[in-house]
Amino acid sequence: MKEKIILLAHGSSDSNWSDTFVRLTEKACATHAHVTLGFMELSSPSLESCVAEASKEAYECVTVLPLFLAKGKHLKKDVPAMLENYAKTYDIQTRLLPPIGEHPALSQALVSIIEETVQN
Amino acid sequence: MKEKIILLAHGSSDSNWSDTFVRLTEKACATHAHVTLGFMELSSPSLESCVAEASKEAYECVTVLPLFLAKGKHLKKDVPAMLENYAKTYDIQTRLLPPIGEHPALSQALVSIIEETVQN
Repeated sequence: MKEKIILLAHGSSDSNWSDTFVRLTEKACATHAHVTLGFMELSSPSLESCVAEASKEAYECVTVLPLFLAKGKHLKKDVPAMLENYAKTYDIQTRLLPPIGEHPALSQALVSIIEETVQN
Repeated sequence: MKEKIILLAHGSSDSNWSDTFVRLTEKACATHAHVTLGFMELSSPSLESCVAEASKEAYECVTVLPLFLAKGKHLKKDVPAMLENYAKTYDIQTRLLPPIGEHPALSQALVSIIEETVQN
């Protein structure tokens, strides 16, 4: 199945905040085709515009990887509701993954960051 | 200098949310001595109680590593003000690091998570 991966950050009116996510995802977007960054609110591109674009490009599914450390109200209620709505509007399948903070790779990255911190 | 490292998460009234941070930091706390998890608000232990504890245990400095993906108002204003206050109250040096989302290890972890996602 032709699948687009949307790295989803919350978004902010502070452009420094959203720039951090652009830098954080630069390597992932450059390394993997079909990967893009989108925002829930306040920053662009919006999640909706990413889903619309994927549909236009004939992707059959969008998989959303939340750039959140833990699951709060946004990931339990708001994002699933948005995706259900966009799936109908843009005639595309959607899949919501757990937030990156639940993945063992994050726990390992934290150990590396602390090692570096302790040395300095 | 005897240094305590506090991994600082925001905190939430939702215990599932804070449990994610307990799991995320388990390996780091088990691997490194002098590392502990604290919260800005709503969850315990609080940042203040972690600083108080470090002072009581004769640490000379607390280094705070924010478990945040980007720097918003909390990390630009609130946490520096809290640390300035606690430094005086508990007679201890404090150091605030950039949030983990600005570290290259996070960008690399994201690439690994996507690799796994694409394969499944």
